[in-house]
This record gives sequence, C-alpha cells and structure tokens, in this order.
Amino acid sequence: MKIMILGSEGYMGWPTSVNQCSQGHEILMIDNNIKKSLMRNHKRKPLVNQKSINARLLYLKKRFKNKVTFSNIDCSNLNKLESVFKKFKPDTVIHYAELPSAPYSMIGSKEGWLTLENNLKSTFNLISCVKKYNKDCHIIKLGTMGEYGTPNIDIEEGWLSVKHNKRIDKFMYPRQGSSLYHTSKIMDTDLLWFYVRLYELRVTDLMQGPVYGIYYSDNDDSKYLPTFSYDDIFGTVLNRFIVQAVVGIPLTIYGTGHQIRGYINLKDSLKCINLAIKNPAKKGQMEIYNQFTEQYSVNQIAKKVRNALSRININVKLQKISNPRIERNKHYYNARNDKMKKLGLHAELLDESTIVEIAEYVMKHKANIDKKFIKPRMKW
Amino acid sequence: MKIMILGSEGYMGWPTSVNQCSQGHEILMIDNNIKKSLMRNHKRKPLVNQKSINARLLYLKKRFKNKVTFSNIDCSNLNKLESVFKKFKPDTVIHYAELPSAPYSMIGSKEGWLTLENNLKSTFNLISCVKKYNKDCHIIKLGTMGEYGTPNIDIEEGWLSVKHNKRIDKFMYPRQGSSLYHTSKIMDTDLLWFYVRLYELRVTDLMQGPVYGIYYSDNDDSKYLPTFSYDDIFGTVLNRFIVQAVVGIPLTIYGTGHQIRGYINLKDSLKCINLAIKNPAKKGQMEIYNQFTEQYSVNQIAKKVRNALSRININVKLQKISNPRIERNKHYYNARNDKMKKLGLHAELLDESTIVEIAEYVMKHKANIDKKFIKPRMKW
Repeated sequence: MKIMILGSEGYMGWPTSVNQCSQGHEILMIDNNIKKSLMRNHKRKPLVNQKSINARLLYLKKRFKNKVTFSNIDCSNLNKLESVFKKFKPDTVIHYAELPSAPYSMIGSKEGWLTLENNLKSTFNLISCVKKYNKDCHIIKLGTMGEYGTPNIDIEEGWLSVKHNKRIDKFMYPRQGSSLYHTSKIMDTDLLWFYVRLYELRVTDLMQGPVYGIYYSDNDDSKYLPTFSYDDIFGTVLNRFIVQAVVGIPLTIYGTGHQIRGYINLKDSLKCINLAIKNPAKKGQMEIYNQFTEQYSVNQIAKKVRNALSRININVKLQKISNPRIERNKHYYNARNDKMKKLGLHAELLDESTIVEIAEYVMKHKANIDKKFIKPRMKW
Repeated sequence: MKIMILGSEGYMGWPTSVNQCSQGHEILMIDNNIKKSLMRNHKRKPLVNQKSINARLLYLKKRFKNKVTFSNIDCSNLNKLESVFKKFKPDTVIHYAELPSAPYSMIGSKEGWLTLENNLKSTFNLISCVKKYNKDCHIIKLGTMGEYGTPNIDIEEGWLSVKHNKRIDKFMYPRQGSSLYHTSKIMDTDLLWFYVRLYELRVTDLMQGPVYGIYYSDNDDSKYLPTFSYDDIFGTVLNRFIVQAVVGIPLTIYGTGHQIRGYINLKDSLKCINLAIKNPAKKGQMEIYNQFTEQYSVNQIAKKVRNALSRININVKLQKISNPRIERNKHYYNARNDKMKKLGLHAELLDESTIVEIAEYVMKHKANIDKKFIKPRMKW
C-alpha cells in the first residue's frame, strides 16, 4: 500500500513513519518543520534533537528495504501538495500536519490565527487533492478527545442519537473545545464531515487523548526515537511530570487536579493507526474512534508518577498551582472507547514499569533539560 | 449608541446603515467591496448599480443629521480593523463582513478557501478587537438557518437539551450545512461560542433564512435602495423567481421543489436587528435567534409568485430542473422562531401585494436584466 504521512517529523509522525515501513508499505513522508521553527522562536527544545532527515531516511531504507521518500512541503500550499499527491498516488493519507499546541494557540492573535489557518488549510488542501485525484483515498485524520470538552453526559464515539419531541436523528457528537487549538480541530471535523456527506469521501477521525511515552515498539533503535517535548508550550502532561520528577522539581498540577482525561501510550497509538488502515472507512462514511485506553484525573497521574519513581529512589513532590487555563476543575467524565478494542487493540497499561522506563530515558538526557521552560507561562 | 457595521455595502449592510441612522445612532460603515469585485470578475451585476458611497453618505447626513462615516477596510486585516475599532469605540458591532454565496464557495478550491478564510478571519479579527479593547461590546453576527441543515427533529433556537443514559446536558444545536459557505458560518459559530465561553463576550447570533424584498421601510427613497442580485451565484430564490417571471422565462425549481426553508422579508430582518440591539446578549452569553417568519417549500414559493403576478397580467411558468446542489429533496422541517416574536416582532407576511411590489420594482429596471446569468451554472 502507498501511504502518505503529513507531518512526518513530529512526535507522532516519525514513529508512524517507522511503523508503517515495518508494515511493508511504500511511504512518502511530508513535513515543512513548522513546529520545529516555532519551538526555536520560543526558545523551546525537545529533550533530544532528532537526527537529520537524511540520516533517518538511510536508517529506514537499510532496516526495512522499503521505498521511502521525504518531501519538505508546506501542506497549506495547495499547488505543492497537489504536485506530490498526484505523483505519489497514495491509497491512504495519515494527516498529522497540524499545529498541536493548546498553549501556543492562546499566546495571542498572531499565534491563534496561524494555528487556525495552518490546520484548516492543510485539511482543506488534502481534501481538495483527494476530491480531484482519487476520491477512494482513505484519509486518516488525528482528532483529539479535547474536541468533546467535558460534557455532563457520556461521551460516545463521534456520534449521538438524539430523541427530541418524539422524533429521532443521529448527529455528530457535540463538540466544545477549551482552546483555540481544540477549536481548530473541531473546524477540521466540520470540514471533513461536510465533504464526506457531499462527495462520499472515506475519512477516519481518531479522537486521541494525551499521548505519553518515548518507545514505539519493542525493538526501537535508541538513536531513532521521536522528539520528546516537556516544556510548557509543546509538552504533554505525563511526559512533563516525569521530566519534573527527574530534575527534582515538584510536579505542577494545574488547579485542583480533578480534570479527567483519557490517556494513551504511544505504542497503542501506533497500533490504532494500523487498525484504522486495515479497517478503512467506507465510501461516504466518517468513521470516528475515541483513541485512548485509560481515564485518569491529573491527580491520579501525578500519584502514579510518584509511586512508580519511588521504586528507583526518586523522591517526587506534587504542587498544586493556580490553573493557567480556563477549564472545569470538577466535572463528569465518562468516554467510551470500545471500537478500537473490538478491532483487536490490546492496550499497554500505564503501570509503574512503563513510567520507570520513560524516566530512565529522561535521566540519560537529564543534562539537556532546561528547567526555565517547564512552568506554565501561557495563561488563558 | 455607537454602531459599527461590517459589510455595510451589501444587500443587508446598506439598509441596516440607513435604518440605524434613522434610530439616531452614530454609525461607522465598513466594507472593502470584495463581493462587488468578485461579482465583476464573474460578470454578474446587481439589477441596479448602487450610487457611490459619497453620494450615499451625503444622503444619510442630510436626511438624518447623524454622525456617519465610512471606511474602506478589509476586516480580514487585523491591523486595519484594530485601528478603526479602537478609534471609533463601538458599543455594538453588526457583522455582515462575510462572503454570502453558497454557489460561489463551491466553484473550486480557490473560491472555497477564499470564502473560508475571509469569513473566519473577519470574525476572528473582530473577536480579537473586542477582547483587546472592550469586552463589553455587543457583537451581532449574522448566521444562517442553513447551518442547521435539514435534521429529522425540530430545529430549536440555537440550543438543544439532550438526555442520554439518564444524564442531561445542554449543547449548541447540531449544525451540518450543505455548502462550504454554510460550513464557514458553522465555523464562525464555533469560534464565537468558544470566546463567549472563555472570555465572557456578549454575542447575538441571528440564524437568518433567505431574505427577500427591496424595500426596507415605508418611506424609502427609490434612489437609495439596496443592491438586488438575481443571478445564479449571488441571488436568492424568491428575488430570482420574480426576475424570471418579469423577463418571461420559467421559474427554475431545483429538483423536486420539496425543499423547505424559513423566509424573511428584508423589512423584518431590520426589525430583528433592532430588537437584537435593544436586547443585547448578557456577558458570557451567546444569544441565538432563528430569524425567519414563515416556512415554505420551493414549490410553494414558486406558486405564490405565479398567483401574485397573475394579478398584474404576468403569465408565470414553472420548470423543474435537475437539482444542481446536493441536498435532501424530501425532508422533515420544523424550525422554531418564537424568540423574536416574544421581543415584539410583528412580521410582514409574504402576501401577493408584497410580491407585486417587488415585481414592479424589477419591471422598472427590466432593461438591466441579463438572462444569461440566471440559470444555475455551479453544480455540486
């Protein structure tokens, strides 16, 4: 199968590229490194710099013998995206080409609009290519559980049957994000669902919870791990907590810590991508999965880190700080995640050994950690 | 009160400007004439060219003695919008600065993206100004009934209580438009609702049905009527039907003609704007109204035109043509419109004399009608 990976340089994009090579597919990796340049502008660095794309391409070719190429293309440029799309003729496109940071999107009007424009235009251009050159191409788009917000009813997988005044209809599950980034993802969904309805495209939307971890398979080469961000703008909660623990600063719990979310291990995330590829949405269907494996509150995550790291003699302190974000501190949260399990997902659990494994990786690169950029600066 | 009208040159914008002057407000009219230039590019013309903005400003100043100014500003340019916003300090902004055509948005990728970008960026920039300079400013945004699509349950006014697995929550009523233009309006709504939740802005969203008519009060000066489009791209159904009747070509009914929508007279639309100004949304509230007065199928509208114009000896033929749009031909449709009535709206009904009155205006300018551009060209 020919698979195009948009946003191949990211935390998800690179492991997906390796994983899809290991599945024997022909791969076209696409990225314009916009996130890297935004990180540089804001003086944020990943824990370890990635090897150059050329070194990584060589590694992929040597290890897997697949046909794999990379194109430095801005997906928000339609002409450029069209030119590679019609030449490569993908069967499946995995779409990660979006600015993924809630705090970044909330810095100011400039950053807010850049997030909206980059994310929407990449999605719009991808749709334009599929519509023009191959309506049968399967689009797999990474959504986020954050699109749902924290509703007072159970969160179903993408759709909701509504009975009202004795009549019934099925709708897209209501969405209400808590940052401009999340709102851009809701708009993405609006856009894809419109084109699925109208032109019978085939779209899978993976509503993913916060991802954690650094390893993506059981035999990763340690020189080719993904970028791992722990900072206030581009890092995610569990990874950041482990970094805080390793450098001996308290884990900063935003607000009461009662905020519940669904989490997923990077390894499971890749398994889900494979399940989505093998079970493509049908023509005219928007197949939506809730892509997380366990629900935890922030307090529970913090305590899990403390307990796990006590096993390797790291003394972890927890610190509640005033929530820099506007979000409900106490809320109902019960989200379904049956569909991936039905397709065969066996999840890695967030156990102590998983946390220790990540911590050991972080400890190896402890010298690279810049403590200045861990505490939240962006408030909204 | 100081009122800023974004998109003041349009079919809604100019009558609103006159009407708001007549209410004694201080007015800043803003438009960059983008719709006019797109119409020129596509060789479409309104039935009658508007007088120059200078002539119209003179007319307003002479008739109403108000302070009224005009700025040729592209609302999708944040710096420019900010500069006039902070200088004028509006209490209320009426936001029409959007490309309003479903067929235009469906021409191709270029026109589609222009619609998305122009509409979203104008809204985003307006929000940025309000958030930065005056959170208390009341935003009145024109939405469209088309955002709801044609659901199988009653259409409530903006919000829907959902009971699910014995729990209840209230959500924004599900939205699913039938063109990219409508989708851009849904995204607008997503964006405004996000900022209302987060920053307690005050927003009124007027979900308007197709508007008809040319007169906006009982003592309009015939030299200062709004632009009236009848063409396939920028015209709306009832106005176009009347033009077809006047030039003696059959009224083109798209598909079965069973498509039901809610309609409103231009005069009523202006009354609603006034009611919205006088009953502003509270802090942190998104007040949503369904702004239409009567529901009709396309067949009913066509028959109404035929019957009305037989009174002035115009013989009207109806012709069903294959639907150029993808939309449900037969569907349930029952939308509420109680809230404006409760505020005091007394609606003009779509009676025969109203149709004759519009037809007489069209007959006076019959020589300007270009028959070439009435039949639908844009298909999706």
